[in-house]
Amino acid sequence: MARLVVMYKTPQDAAAFDKHYFEKHVAIAKKIPGVRKYEVSQGAVTSPMGGTNYHLVAILEFDNVAAIQNAFASAEGQAAVADVQTFATGGVDIFMFDSRQV
Amino acid sequence: MARLVVMYKTPQDAAAFDKHYFEKHVAIAKKIPGVRKYEVSQGAVTSPMGGTNYHLVAILEFDNVAAIQNAFASAEGQAAVADVQTFATGGVDIFMFDSRQV
Repeated sequence: MARLVVMYKTPQDAAAFDKHYFEKHVAIAKKIPGVRKYEVSQGAVTSPMGGTNYHLVAILEFDNVAAIQNAFASAEGQAAVADVQTFATGGVDIFMFDSRQV
Repeated sequence: MARLVVMYKTPQDAAAFDKHYFEKHVAIAKKIPGVRKYEVSQGAVTSPMGGTNYHLVAILEFDNVAAIQNAFASAEGQAAVADVQTFATGGVDIFMFDSRQV
């Protein structure tokens, strides 16, 4: 199993971000080849110290990191990346790694 | 469902970190009440741009954010936090949020 963790920083307009994310981006991202599961944070992204500068976190599951790399290289992956650039006005941090249950 | 994402920055001694994490910390963390699933990155934590300053990422599943807050307040949670402070020599970023499949 591998994880793609997409962490969106607080955007300029949170309501506009959410509208675009849920009405458009989710459908675009679901077309990316190799996505096994796709979950999105609800409500605030917090830390034990309190608030954070992140607005929304998406965690996607793939078979392995190679599948994530193939996904980014695909037309559907490039479409998702292009879409992100239209609404992620606060910036985005992206991490990927193989993962296993312990 | 809720997620606790624990992101360890590159430590001073990666081998010592890994030894402590897998030989001691996993067992301590598994005792935290309310943990439903617990997964840990394997190999490098990367980004589409290349490397990152993170060494290891743990993703834990709980029923909801309230359960995570209760976990941090528990004796077992406090023991896990105290243990982290002994080996997370690069620092750690912690995030929590309710989450749902989309």
